[in-house]
Amino acid sequence: MPLRLDSRDADFATAFTALVDARREADEDVSRDVTAILKRVRAEGDAALADYTSRFDRHDLNASGWTVSPAECRAALDSISTQLRDALELAAARITAYHEKQKPQDSDEIDATGVRLGARWRSVDAAGLYVPGGRAAYPSSLLMNAIPAKVAGVSRIAMVTPTPNGDINPLVLAAASIAGIEEIWRVGGAQAVAALAYGTKSIKPVDVITGPGNAWVAEAKRQLYGVVGIDMVAGPSEILVVADAKNDPAWIAADLLSQSEHDPTSQSILFTDDAAFADAVAKAVEQRLPLLSTQAVAATSWANNGAIILVRDFEEAMPLVNRLAAEHLELAVDDPEALFTQVRHAGSVFLGRMTPEAVGDYVAGPNHVLPTGRRARFSSGLSVLDFMKRTSFLSLDQNSIGAIGPAAVALAEAEGLPAHAASVALRLK
Amino acid sequence: MPLRLDSRDADFATAFTALVDARREADEDVSRDVTAILKRVRAEGDAALADYTSRFDRHDLNASGWTVSPAECRAALDSISTQLRDALELAAARITAYHEKQKPQDSDEIDATGVRLGARWRSVDAAGLYVPGGRAAYPSSLLMNAIPAKVAGVSRIAMVTPTPNGDINPLVLAAASIAGIEEIWRVGGAQAVAALAYGTKSIKPVDVITGPGNAWVAEAKRQLYGVVGIDMVAGPSEILVVADAKNDPAWIAADLLSQSEHDPTSQSILFTDDAAFADAVAKAVEQRLPLLSTQAVAATSWANNGAIILVRDFEEAMPLVNRLAAEHLELAVDDPEALFTQVRHAGSVFLGRMTPEAVGDYVAGPNHVLPTGRRARFSSGLSVLDFMKRTSFLSLDQNSIGAIGPAAVALAEAEGLPAHAASVALRLK
Repeated sequence: MPLRLDSRDADFATAFTALVDARREADEDVSRDVTAILKRVRAEGDAALADYTSRFDRHDLNASGWTVSPAECRAALDSISTQLRDALELAAARITAYHEKQKPQDSDEIDATGVRLGARWRSVDAAGLYVPGGRAAYPSSLLMNAIPAKVAGVSRIAMVTPTPNGDINPLVLAAASIAGIEEIWRVGGAQAVAALAYGTKSIKPVDVITGPGNAWVAEAKRQLYGVVGIDMVAGPSEILVVADAKNDPAWIAADLLSQSEHDPTSQSILFTDDAAFADAVAKAVEQRLPLLSTQAVAATSWANNGAIILVRDFEEAMPLVNRLAAEHLELAVDDPEALFTQVRHAGSVFLGRMTPEAVGDYVAGPNHVLPTGRRARFSSGLSVLDFMKRTSFLSLDQNSIGAIGPAAVALAEAEGLPAHAASVALRLK
Repeated sequence: MPLRLDSRDADFATAFTALVDARREADEDVSRDVTAILKRVRAEGDAALADYTSRFDRHDLNASGWTVSPAECRAALDSISTQLRDALELAAARITAYHEKQKPQDSDEIDATGVRLGARWRSVDAAGLYVPGGRAAYPSSLLMNAIPAKVAGVSRIAMVTPTPNGDINPLVLAAASIAGIEEIWRVGGAQAVAALAYGTKSIKPVDVITGPGNAWVAEAKRQLYGVVGIDMVAGPSEILVVADAKNDPAWIAADLLSQSEHDPTSQSILFTDDAAFADAVAKAVEQRLPLLSTQAVAATSWANNGAIILVRDFEEAMPLVNRLAAEHLELAVDDPEALFTQVRHAGSVFLGRMTPEAVGDYVAGPNHVLPTGRRARFSSGLSVLDFMKRTSFLSLDQNSIGAIGPAAVALAEAEGLPAHAASVALRLK
């Protein structure tokens, strides 16, 4: 049974704080394993990759191939249905259009003292893209990670993916073909992340690594942060739905279950101002569950991490919504804009009754790689900026260094840095 | 003696690669110590802070005070010379002006299918600012970290700084007064970072932690990345100067030493196309060193990590410059713009003979918190964006979900996610 809270109850504040603070992230002690894997790949390179891939994925890289070729991706694209191909191409076009608008502007100006100053954005040289194998091998994730890198202008994208027993999802290859990915390595896990970060004889190192993965992949990225750039520390998916009684309970139930079905650690939370509607949604969830091929996962997630929170009104809800800082936030009310202006922390917001979160997972355009675990308090969804960096610049002349240089000399001397002071003072007339 | 390389030498490629790959970062095994400190602060809160501060900083928080008040900062500001006060105020005004232009634009539009989509930027609620004590207690760093947070609109800035034996640099307090910082805690080290991330009874948790620190502080930030946002993984400072023979060797020597004097692990590298100029700069460095109060540090850094690289011409130099991806890059040549267009990776670029890097450390406007250790390949200097995050949003209606919803249903079904498919399909007519 999911948690039920009522803001009128005396212990509500305590119970809600417990919900906010609950950690759903895997507590497995993978850290030490990952450290050992990174160390071995760094020391042994390709030989370590071949050994781990043989053991974990039952795929012999040297006998059965290290890579998937663009021709294989193209063949996969040709093999899928027209409906799916059209859907992937619509998704790619809309994701591209949305991300094109994220490209940052350079600046370059001369201020009143004659100092020229500004900033130039450039893409990273190479991005590594992790694509999970098995159940979570999602073509949509590939598009969401590869397209911002392409739009940023990254010239090399190296994709890694585990191919258990040599198998790989043809839809993923079709998506790779659409995204124009030409370098695909049949390695996965922490060892693949290590190879991308450090480089091996076969795999050249990259500058940024993005893409979802299991606890080992996430921990490898965390440990390598600083050696390379990474997208974010990702945790289980979550949705928060704010819905009034005018919604169809079946729709809201489906929305909640669309997160629950991802993983047993996923979380779905409903805020509503109507007790009868809360009951109706709970009932609709129970009715929908047996219809799902993902029933086992969804039922476990809903029972363990689901919550229905009854509030007096949505004015009361919004500060609570901000405390949860959810990855996905649906505002299924008459005037979603009024609530949206009160949102300070959320990964992505879905406005109104006709905007189910799942439409954003696939084809709407905004990125579906979003901060989880309350990290929307301080981080953003994946964007073109994750594949670019800014170089600031300055240019002074005799007049402008005369205008601002003496202050620099004074501060450098006060900070006890005489070479700093000299490098400016020598240039003053 | 600093390294001397000549691109005409047969072993140049190997020697240059060794320079690129050399790690200058502290190899001390601080990781385990930091893990223990974080764990104890999380469990014991203020009591752990009081104990560590007593042991490491010889300051009794409970007997001698936990905080520095705004009145104390104001008094410090009133106590410093007019010259220094004017210099700090000029710096603050110029840093503010530069960072104001970094504020991102929201987007909100309706596309051809009738889908409304966009993104809104909001500041984080609270930022933690680490300010080192002792030798590296720099008022300029305080301004460079606090002002972008202020410009972003962060309503709470919590500063932490160690006060060994209770002492604190009055210039730092004066800068805090100018920056409008009202919450200052007399704690430092990994324990202060832990307190900011987890919160204690006294110190409320923050969302982002920025600011320089020693190896323990840097490791604490690295370990807490994901619990909070951090600015970057910072290493020793570095400068790369590209200079032709028309420069005054004394100026270039001062520029190189302005990084060398920071720390024995700092690095200063000269690229030049003229062997006689290389010798002249080397001689000028030896002449300048005895004049510096920072001579011991600067001489060690220059001898251990300095390098003079002779190239045939600057066309040959630029790919090497990009491989080093330096924090600071001076282009002291006649046409710096021609070289700047070839720069792909650098934290900040200083154009022409009259733009010493040190002017950017203090008063020019761009941030002096920049990526080190080749991280300019994938990361940027500190900016307003480090204190903000983006929330994407979508709004569909019956028509627009009809236009793009079926593709989402097809992809969700292909990915084996039936609740995703249902949440869209139920809304299609």
